[in-house]
Amino acid sequence: MNFSSDTSAPAHARVIEALLDANSGMEGSYGGDSATAAVRPLLEAVFETDDFDFWMTASGTASNALALSCFCPPTGAVLCHEQAHIERDERGAPEFFSGGGKLRLLKGFGARIERDALEAALGQINRDFVHETPADVLSLTNLTECGTAYSAAEVALYARLAHDKGLAVHMDGARLGNALISTHAKAADMTWKAGVDVLTFGLTKTGAIGCEIIILFGRARTKYADLKARAKRSGHMPAKMRFIAAQARAMLDGGLWLELAEHANAMAADLADVFTGAGFDLAYPVDGNEVFPLLPDDAAKRLRKAGALFYPWADNSSRFVCAWSTGPEDIAAVRAALAAG
Amino acid sequence: MNFSSDTSAPAHARVIEALLDANSGMEGSYGGDSATAAVRPLLEAVFETDDFDFWMTASGTASNALALSCFCPPTGAVLCHEQAHIERDERGAPEFFSGGGKLRLLKGFGARIERDALEAALGQINRDFVHETPADVLSLTNLTECGTAYSAAEVALYARLAHDKGLAVHMDGARLGNALISTHAKAADMTWKAGVDVLTFGLTKTGAIGCEIIILFGRARTKYADLKARAKRSGHMPAKMRFIAAQARAMLDGGLWLELAEHANAMAADLADVFTGAGFDLAYPVDGNEVFPLLPDDAAKRLRKAGALFYPWADNSSRFVCAWSTGPEDIAAVRAALAAG
Amino acid sequence: MNFSSDTSAPAHARVIEALLDANSGMEGSYGGDSATAAVRPLLEAVFETDDFDFWMTASGTASNALALSCFCPPTGAVLCHEQAHIERDERGAPEFFSGGGKLRLLKGFGARIERDALEAALGQINRDFVHETPADVLSLTNLTECGTAYSAAEVALYARLAHDKGLAVHMDGARLGNALISTHAKAADMTWKAGVDVLTFGLTKTGAIGCEIIILFGRARTKYADLKARAKRSGHMPAKMRFIAAQARAMLDGGLWLELAEHANAMAADLADVFTGAGFDLAYPVDGNEVFPLLPDDAAKRLRKAGALFYPWADNSSRFVCAWSTGPEDIAAVRAALAAG
Amino acid sequence: MNFSSDTSAPAHARVIEALLDANSGMEGSYGGDSATAAVRPLLEAVFETDDFDFWMTASGTASNALALSCFCPPTGAVLCHEQAHIERDERGAPEFFSGGGKLRLLKGFGARIERDALEAALGQINRDFVHETPADVLSLTNLTECGTAYSAAEVALYARLAHDKGLAVHMDGARLGNALISTHAKAADMTWKAGVDVLTFGLTKTGAIGCEIIILFGRARTKYADLKARAKRSGHMPAKMRFIAAQARAMLDGGLWLELAEHANAMAADLADVFTGAGFDLAYPVDGNEVFPLLPDDAAKRLRKAGALFYPWADNSSRFVCAWSTGPEDIAAVRAALAAG
Repeated sequence: MNFSSDTSAPAHARVIEALLDANSGMEGSYGGDSATAAVRPLLEAVFETDDFDFWMTASGTASNALALSCFCPPTGAVLCHEQAHIERDERGAPEFFSGGGKLRLLKGFGARIERDALEAALGQINRDFVHETPADVLSLTNLTECGTAYSAAEVALYARLAHDKGLAVHMDGARLGNALISTHAKAADMTWKAGVDVLTFGLTKTGAIGCEIIILFGRARTKYADLKARAKRSGHMPAKMRFIAAQARAMLDGGLWLELAEHANAMAADLADVFTGAGFDLAYPVDGNEVFPLLPDDAAKRLRKAGALFYPWADNSSRFVCAWSTGPEDIAAVRAALAAG
Repeated sequence: MNFSSDTSAPAHARVIEALLDANSGMEGSYGGDSATAAVRPLLEAVFETDDFDFWMTASGTASNALALSCFCPPTGAVLCHEQAHIERDERGAPEFFSGGGKLRLLKGFGARIERDALEAALGQINRDFVHETPADVLSLTNLTECGTAYSAAEVALYARLAHDKGLAVHMDGARLGNALISTHAKAADMTWKAGVDVLTFGLTKTGAIGCEIIILFGRARTKYADLKARAKRSGHMPAKMRFIAAQARAMLDGGLWLELAEHANAMAADLADVFTGAGFDLAYPVDGNEVFPLLPDDAAKRLRKAGALFYPWADNSSRFVCAWSTGPEDIAAVRAALAAG
Repeated sequence: MNFSSDTSAPAHARVIEALLDANSGMEGSYGGDSATAAVRPLLEAVFETDDFDFWMTASGTASNALALSCFCPPTGAVLCHEQAHIERDERGAPEFFSGGGKLRLLKGFGARIERDALEAALGQINRDFVHETPADVLSLTNLTECGTAYSAAEVALYARLAHDKGLAVHMDGARLGNALISTHAKAADMTWKAGVDVLTFGLTKTGAIGCEIIILFGRARTKYADLKARAKRSGHMPAKMRFIAAQARAMLDGGLWLELAEHANAMAADLADVFTGAGFDLAYPVDGNEVFPLLPDDAAKRLRKAGALFYPWADNSSRFVCAWSTGPEDIAAVRAALAAG
Repeated sequence: MNFSSDTSAPAHARVIEALLDANSGMEGSYGGDSATAAVRPLLEAVFETDDFDFWMTASGTASNALALSCFCPPTGAVLCHEQAHIERDERGAPEFFSGGGKLRLLKGFGARIERDALEAALGQINRDFVHETPADVLSLTNLTECGTAYSAAEVALYARLAHDKGLAVHMDGARLGNALISTHAKAADMTWKAGVDVLTFGLTKTGAIGCEIIILFGRARTKYADLKARAKRSGHMPAKMRFIAAQARAMLDGGLWLELAEHANAMAADLADVFTGAGFDLAYPVDGNEVFPLLPDDAAKRLRKAGALFYPWADNSSRFVCAWSTGPEDIAAVRAALAAG
């Protein structure tokens, strides 16, 4: 009954096996190894294109900040939701990596930027007015921090609006797999085909140890040398890169990442049913592996007493995150604890 | 015959086993796990004190830069050797993490700062002269980039000189074990007892996957909150910290790190004998796991033809690095290749 | 009828005279001149204390950013109103000077932070939660960007709330004189006696060419060396400081700055009467030298046609700024233009 | 007998007159004034081209750092002489403005970069090697910090070498006029025609209060919007820009700046004659307004006792700077003091 975070889960067995496989003999450092070379074709298959460059890090925070810093100059700004991970949970990483860029916070239900807020923010940009900091990047999180998803069509619309005003589009895909499963979208449709210029493709929360892939699509590839220099300079160019690459291989090969995301989503759906069945409303729709019930104090207490771990969240809700390792027994335990009240 | 770098080596089997052990059940994120908790007593034993705080990252570059940024303000400088890794191989990481601090480069044979250069640099510091950037940190690398070592007594002398002028003392110990073995020093004597305020304790090159421990000793512990904030902000607070901690446990438990360093040093000593036996001088004394022969072109060619991997280095030397996994067969192969000339 | 900004006004004649006086013979550079030495006693008289250090720059943006950067670390944040000059009109200067700190935006009518918003923001600070950026400074603007004022008592209350949570208190006093006149407060009562740690004391808008004084009060004086280093490093340590000091002397000597502020306030009061007399509401109370009438389009057009210069502002209002050089004829011209409708 | 610095001199009378002229009526802020508009044609005449953009600040340090930051990314470096003002006297301003770029220090007699050192540094640049920081800008100071000059042909040669390796070329022209006079070069020949991309055109030391003009030539004009944003953000976009512009007008109109530089150079030549006539060698040739005699202790003491102000300098020399306001009586006083020995 540990629903505190999908980062509290262990890694999938195949990830560990892949580390074992990779741990053999001498290999080139800093990405010059055979495991890293094997990642590219797997990404090509996932994204149905070879028009991209990529870099792998062990950190979602670093991957977001590195991606943003390639597009947001020190004198610029990033548009994001006011509950975005880059604003709330990264201790100023985007500001640090960009050299003092700003985040401009947009509103919207369930951590989804609402169209009016986006259009208003875009409308206010005046690149000729030197006193104000104009936005240079739009950052969308999918799955969002409230467990809701943007459809591929919505991403495409928002990306078009942003591009029309000269902004680049970043997607924080720390839980991309979960969003793809629930929106029935293919990875390509949700990303580059929708206009995403740079993606943080997260595999850590999905089931790896620490593996996030920054992908520059199409014309954004001009930033690749800058990305590598920034990765090196920030300590995100591991000497023994093969061990991050091995994780990527394990997760991408045969679609394990989507399998695990699908399972986590299914557990979340079951958990949501438990809460609604017990008469509790949900603060947000369940579009992925997170459930946000509006629990009365006594229900929350009962759950904690029974050993459930979860966090208080925005809008008086509680956050329950299902991981690849969450099992039906965890769901059943919640049901039992609630019923015992 | 791959002597390109100790970072080209795989990880030791016990490191991988430790990952397997750690990969069980849910655990607290961001260092709130049981594996991380188990590291502290091991460090207490190694350093014979409990008067320290520590943080683990997967990157030596990040660990150095984080350590320095806690002591070097944006308006300050770091004294280091002109061949120091922080100057030559980290793409400006100290400047980035410190917010624009400077490195002041000192000379000295074999990447060891010479005392006169240090005293001259310290003597020039005038904190009241606002136009010039004064030094706030002395950074010593031990083992140095040329495979030479400072003795504990030398470190203590340099640290005293630095402290007398108000500087903090950092040690880049990416190959600390190798230096300890050759100088017959205990970890405590080489570090906090010698006046080191903050240590980058490297285990990656010694045999881990990616595991570097930043240790704040004594009064430097006041920087711990700042260190954690900077680690978070730079993407060096991994969600699944247990997998870095597991590496530290494997390496520290039973002194594996010293065992592996001792082996690498022994291989280097044998390799040095091969070179000198073949009539080639060494550019620097061999105080660790690196050998820098002065090879004539034809000898270098012969070695490369035989499959040896190594880098051209300063002073017309060639760098050969022995790793924990280097075996007598590698040394024998070099001997054979040279003899075949 | 140029009400576009008090920065569009020329300098007062006595400021120019003081430049002439200062322009004689050789003088020490970088503040080592006799004019600079003469500023301190004048400030002591104005602030009724000698427990302060100060630095002069020609720029309000720089003075704010320098002041904030001494108290807001790269990992920290500044609380300010969402319409504050430091957020809206300084192109990210606080983020730049602090090395990537954040601004946290608070709401409140008429650019005055409302107490509930401040208390909520202070209540959310959790310095032990490393993922979020805690606030380290509260920045109050007085006179605010909407021409409203905080009373000395309000500043004292807010400062106490901020200090209780460990924050330093900054006042952006670009129009301090105007606020002092309207609140009938003495400079000491509005600043250090109310708990202000660091003040940007603006004289440019009041009637100088470019003269802003950063004042560190009491315990904040420990930041003086840091302030000077940051001033030097950012190009705000002019070689010929005597020419900024001369402006300060002219403005402070005999209370010219307050005289000019009083005049500008009086003009604004008259202008406000013109607008209300013509039947137009004001968006905000007139606590200084700025008037924000809610003008219908035809009235605005008529004024512009008659040659009036002013800016559209928040809440559908128009901003009219009176300067030291604004005369009754300017007010009369507005009245006439409105009456001609 | 104050030879401490040309920044210790007052401003020329015509500069003050120009301030008086400019101090009339309301004007647009932030460069939108008539005085600023009048500077452009004067610059066109001086540089014999209209293919440039410019920005004015009151600070040489800021102008250098702003200029460099437009061409040196955070991951890059600037090549400069080890005695360059940007290295020695600006408290890390280039590092700050660039976001953590590095300075790479080159050697050469008399603060002039020697060709071999430049070619070696250029030869080491390997933009594909991500671990090392490549140089992106060459910064030449003319007149140098040792009072020596590069000829226009030398600048052209160095610029060509730098351009061939993809570097931009910056000239720190804090004493440009002095160099032009002694090399008999026209401003155009020394700058854009020689390949200088961005110039810091200093007028402060020449006789203004605080007036430095950053000029982007030709293809460097693409950086103009970036330059303005960085100027704003660093507090170098003064609201009342007209007062900086007025200084530029006074100095450029009728060639006053060259007249004043010529006078200062002539005084320096006379002063050099005094020293050599008294039997003292000069450390460097006198190519401008600075003289560096090698004074025995007793001669230095005698001078100081007679009231002479000057600084100890590199190579055991003493620095004497002549300003526009230095007169024959100052030279005579030195002669007398030396003769009195």
